[in-house]
This record gives sequence, structure tokens and C-alpha cells, in this order.
Amino acid sequence: MNLKQHIEIMLPEIEQELQSQVQRLDAQRTLPFHEMLTYHMGWTGEGAGKEATGKRIRPLMVLLAAASTGAEWRNALPAAAAVEMVHNFSLVHDDVQDNSDKRRGRFTVWKKWGVPMAINVGDAMFVIANQAVMDLIKTHQALTVVRAATILNDTCLDLTRGQYLDMSYEERTDLSLEDYWPMIGGKTSALLSACTHIGALLGNTNEEEQEAYRQFGYHLGLAFQVQDDILGIWGDEAVTGKSAASDLVEGKNSLPVLYALGKQGKFAERWNQGPITVDEVKTVAALLEKEGGRAYAEEMSEKETQKALGFLESANPRGAAGESMLELANMLLKRKQ
Amino acid sequence: MNLKQHIEIMLPEIEQELQSQVQRLDAQRTLPFHEMLTYHMGWTGEGAGKEATGKRIRPLMVLLAAASTGAEWRNALPAAAAVEMVHNFSLVHDDVQDNSDKRRGRFTVWKKWGVPMAINVGDAMFVIANQAVMDLIKTHQALTVVRAATILNDTCLDLTRGQYLDMSYEERTDLSLEDYWPMIGGKTSALLSACTHIGALLGNTNEEEQEAYRQFGYHLGLAFQVQDDILGIWGDEAVTGKSAASDLVEGKNSLPVLYALGKQGKFAERWNQGPITVDEVKTVAALLEKEGGRAYAEEMSEKETQKALGFLESANPRGAAGESMLELANMLLKRKQ
Repeated sequence: MNLKQHIEIMLPEIEQELQSQVQRLDAQRTLPFHEMLTYHMGWTGEGAGKEATGKRIRPLMVLLAAASTGAEWRNALPAAAAVEMVHNFSLVHDDVQDNSDKRRGRFTVWKKWGVPMAINVGDAMFVIANQAVMDLIKTHQALTVVRAATILNDTCLDLTRGQYLDMSYEERTDLSLEDYWPMIGGKTSALLSACTHIGALLGNTNEEEQEAYRQFGYHLGLAFQVQDDILGIWGDEAVTGKSAASDLVEGKNSLPVLYALGKQGKFAERWNQGPITVDEVKTVAALLEKEGGRAYAEEMSEKETQKALGFLESANPRGAAGESMLELANMLLKRKQ
Repeated sequence: MNLKQHIEIMLPEIEQELQSQVQRLDAQRTLPFHEMLTYHMGWTGEGAGKEATGKRIRPLMVLLAAASTGAEWRNALPAAAAVEMVHNFSLVHDDVQDNSDKRRGRFTVWKKWGVPMAINVGDAMFVIANQAVMDLIKTHQALTVVRAATILNDTCLDLTRGQYLDMSYEERTDLSLEDYWPMIGGKTSALLSACTHIGALLGNTNEEEQEAYRQFGYHLGLAFQVQDDILGIWGDEAVTGKSAASDLVEGKNSLPVLYALGKQGKFAERWNQGPITVDEVKTVAALLEKEGGRAYAEEMSEKETQKALGFLESANPRGAAGESMLELANMLLKRKQ
């Protein structure tokens, strides 16, 4: 069985588990509230469907990690739903915080129902994530459930830390390279590392292997984020689906940018003068490349990728699920292919 | 030992437990983030101190419930911190949703640091609440921890349901009595019932007693909310600390109001015409009283109080802590005294 076949089997069960978790709000007086969640999850409303749900990378990672230890992956479904709900809770709140009108081509929750409702929708998704973890009690020992919940909680605190750093950076003009990793560690890597960590915890692994799974997810997350940063500036619009260099216009504190800011050269001078306009984008991107931002980011991405793959090897994943997990990692890291 | 003495012993330990839970954000890069939480909790910043922290009724209720089963209440401290963090998370998000500038005489978190930061502060508090519950593992069996977390999660979902109803009512003009209880059950009673329920769970009780503790908290919450509604319209400013009848000006869907709206009399006619002005308040409050809103609310408050006390009796609380829990309930219900 390869990744494509794993996805074909797992994805419908992930969606079913997610829907049954969200069902908790499907009651007489809260139907419109329930609808806000099903809309965001991509199941209902304008533009609903496969494009709207996202790829469910994180729950797939939980299930493949569990399966690659030789365990029955279906027993990990509540945990898979939990990480996906955490991811989506953070997206709903992010969209409010970033004032984003659209996500995956559709209006965001706050844009449709207002900020107060969107805050509450995110809160409910977060609660449902916690409830989903507790559902692991059906097939796991209580101590395992407590450990899974602890991993997820610690991850969520990292998310809020990363979010804090990201927002606080908006007002700063003295940023450099060392400000990057703590932010990205919280915003992107923490949740991916929770996926592989919890998957391994629910499987047949010892502490040492669990730690290797965790580190694999963590460095995969770092490598992925750096790749995303590179594509956000020099990516092919046709492949990434968003206008190239939009990250420069949006003033995103990506790795190439923070690297170049630390150099205090011409790029830094221009960056600190105020927002980059669409007309300038090509010139500024070229300047950034000339000052080494791209090469540095590519080097870091490669370094983190190698770390991730090293930890994956020592995690010793088994069988077809292990192969598929590697395939999923490669898919994440080489999005141009 | 009476309530006052219980409070003197328990309150410092509650504050210490809360501070050590919030400490999780007290790290090099997140110090200003940590400060936002300590400010809201009433420990730091302008106006910090006893007036700013609130009365910590909910954690006291957890500890007294646990103690009244004969258990060591100190073992329940993480749960006490958890319910207080849930309460405060909901306050921080509420203040954003209601556009409230002030809370307990101090600027709200969003007013000081902006909406995006305030959403993140609330999220972090919610995470810390979940982390606190998991800390029960130090002194309780894993299955008990899972059950405590499940009770708290279910409660939090009720909070989001209540919040949804409250917000959705703002746009409706067809409200009546039956819309009141589901909203208030989520917004006020759910968390108080979680306090007594979790306290009992962590103590030496059987399922039947736990259910009685739960119901005691639930009906206490209902009675308390109805009392609060009455005081918000006919209360003595000097006692309540907020301007009497402000609930009418703010258009709050309180029990007396919803009762009278269902009657479709002169009060309903005026209410549906638009906001009540400060000048009208006395006339409208008198009209509301004439149409039976006050008498009905007082009857309901009394009814719920009796239910609460009945459940407290069958919960069979023991010793001085049991007495103090009753005293705390009476304090909550007869705030005029």
C-alpha cells in the first residue's frame, strides 16, 4: 500500500470522525452555530468540498505514525480529529487576528458572521479538540489518554506563544535571524511534532522511539515552514496557488527576510522604510536573493530536512505505513514536484 | 471553622496555584505575553490587588466541595485553578465580544493590547486551564483525571453554546421566556456545576453523591443568575457597585425582561422600539414590575434556590467544609445582605 492508497482509506474515516466530533453542536438551538463550524471545516456552504477542507495532513500524520508502529490506526482516529480541530481553531482565530477576508478561496468565518461569533467558533473548536482526545479512553488506558492530552495541551500553549511572537514582531524594526526559530517552532512545528508524537504514543513504541517520532515531526515542521517561506517569495504562482512575492507585500517576517535584516544591508534599509508595493516586488526579491536570503533559507531547509529524516530513521517506522509517512514528508518538503 | 476562616486559608493557596500555572508563560521571549495574563488576573499593572482579582468563588467552591467529602482539599488545587482559568478565559473573550472597555474598574485586555492580542490571551488561559487539570495526575488516578477533564470540557462546550445564544439573541425581537434557560444554563450554571461536580469527583464520593453535588451547583448557578438579573434592574447601586437599571439601558435579555416580552404588553412594545435611555429607566423598570417581571423572577430565584438546597442536602456534605459551602451558597444568593 502506498501513500495514495493510505489516503484513500484514511481520509473518509478522518472526515467521519471530525463530523461526529463537531456533531456535538448539532442540537435544536445551536444549529446555526453548528453550521459555522461545518462551513469552516469545508463541508457546507458556498464552495464546500475537497478544495475547502484542506489536505488533512496533520490527522494523516497521526494515523500513519500510529500505523507505522504496527498498531491499529483506527484507534487513533479521535487523536487525529483532535489535532485537526486544534489546527482549525487556530486558523479561525488567526483570520480574525490577521484581518483576512478569505481562506482557501472562501470568505472567512469572521467575514461571514462577525468577529464575536468567530471568536466563539474558534473557542468551540478548541473545546471539541479536547473532547476528542478524551474519546481515546474507548480504546486506550487512562494514563495514555492523560499523556496524549498533555502533549496536545503543551503544543497549544506553544501555538499561543508563537502567535504572540508573530504579532509582537509586527511592531518591531530590530528583528533578526534569532527571532525566527522560536516563532516558527510554536506556530508550525509544535503541532506537526504533536501529530507524530501522539501517533507513536498510541502505538506500540517505547519512550525512545516516541522521542524520535516527536523530533521527526518537529524538524519536518521547521523544514516545511522554511520551504513555505521560500515559495512565498520566489515560488511559481501556478504551483503555489498564491501570487508570488505576496509575502513581501504583506511584510511577513519570513526566514529570508529576517536573515537579510540581520545583515543590515540595502534590503534592510528598504524593508524598514515601510510596506513593499506590488510594483517593487521583483526588484526587492532580487535584492533579497543577492544579499543571501534565499541561499541561506535553502541551506536551512535542507539541514532541517536531513535532521527530520535522521530522526525518522531512528524512529524505526515499520511496513507500508512507514513508507507512506516518508512519502508524505517528502510531499510536504518538495511541493514544487 | 467557618467560611471566613476557610477563605483565609484557601485563598492564598488558590492564588499561588494560579500563579504557578500562569508561570508557564514566564519565559525570556514571552514576558510581555505573561504580563497580559497576570494583569487580567489582577496581580500586576494599574489597579492590581484584591479588588482586581475577583472573589475566586468558583475555585473556592471546588475546594469546599472536595473538603466536604472528607478529602484533602489541597489535592484539588489544580482543578480549582482550572475552573478559575476557564472563567477568566471566557471573561477576556467576552470583553472583546461585548466591546467592553472596563472590567472591575480596570481597562480590559483588548482595550490595553488590542483585539488580536486579547484573543490570544484568552486562548492561552484556556490552554492553561486544560494543563492545570492534567496536573491532577500528581495525586489522583489517571481515570479520575480523564473524568475531571471530561466534565470541564463538556462545561466549556456549554459555555460556547450559551455565548452563541446570548449573541444571537441580540438580533432577535421574538424572544420569550423559553429562550432564557438554555442561555443561562450554559453561561452561568454550567461552570458552577462543574465546580461542585469536580470537587466531589476528586473527593470520597460515589456516583450518586457526585450527581447531587453537580445538581446543587447547577441550580445554585441558575438562582444566582436570576438574582443578578433582578439586582441589575432594581438593585441598590451602593450594594451592587454598578448603576441600577444599567441592564435595561444595555438591552440585556434578563429573566424579568424575557418574561414581560412573552406577555406582549406595554413593556414589550417599548422594548421592541429600541434602546432604553437613562432618563426612561425608572419608568420602564416600574412598567416591567407592574407587568409581573420582578415577581416572576423572584419566584424563580426562590424555586431554584430551594432546588439547590435540596440537592445539597442529598449530597450529604460533611463537617465544617460542608457548613462553609452552604454559607458560600447563601452569600451568593443573598447578595443584599
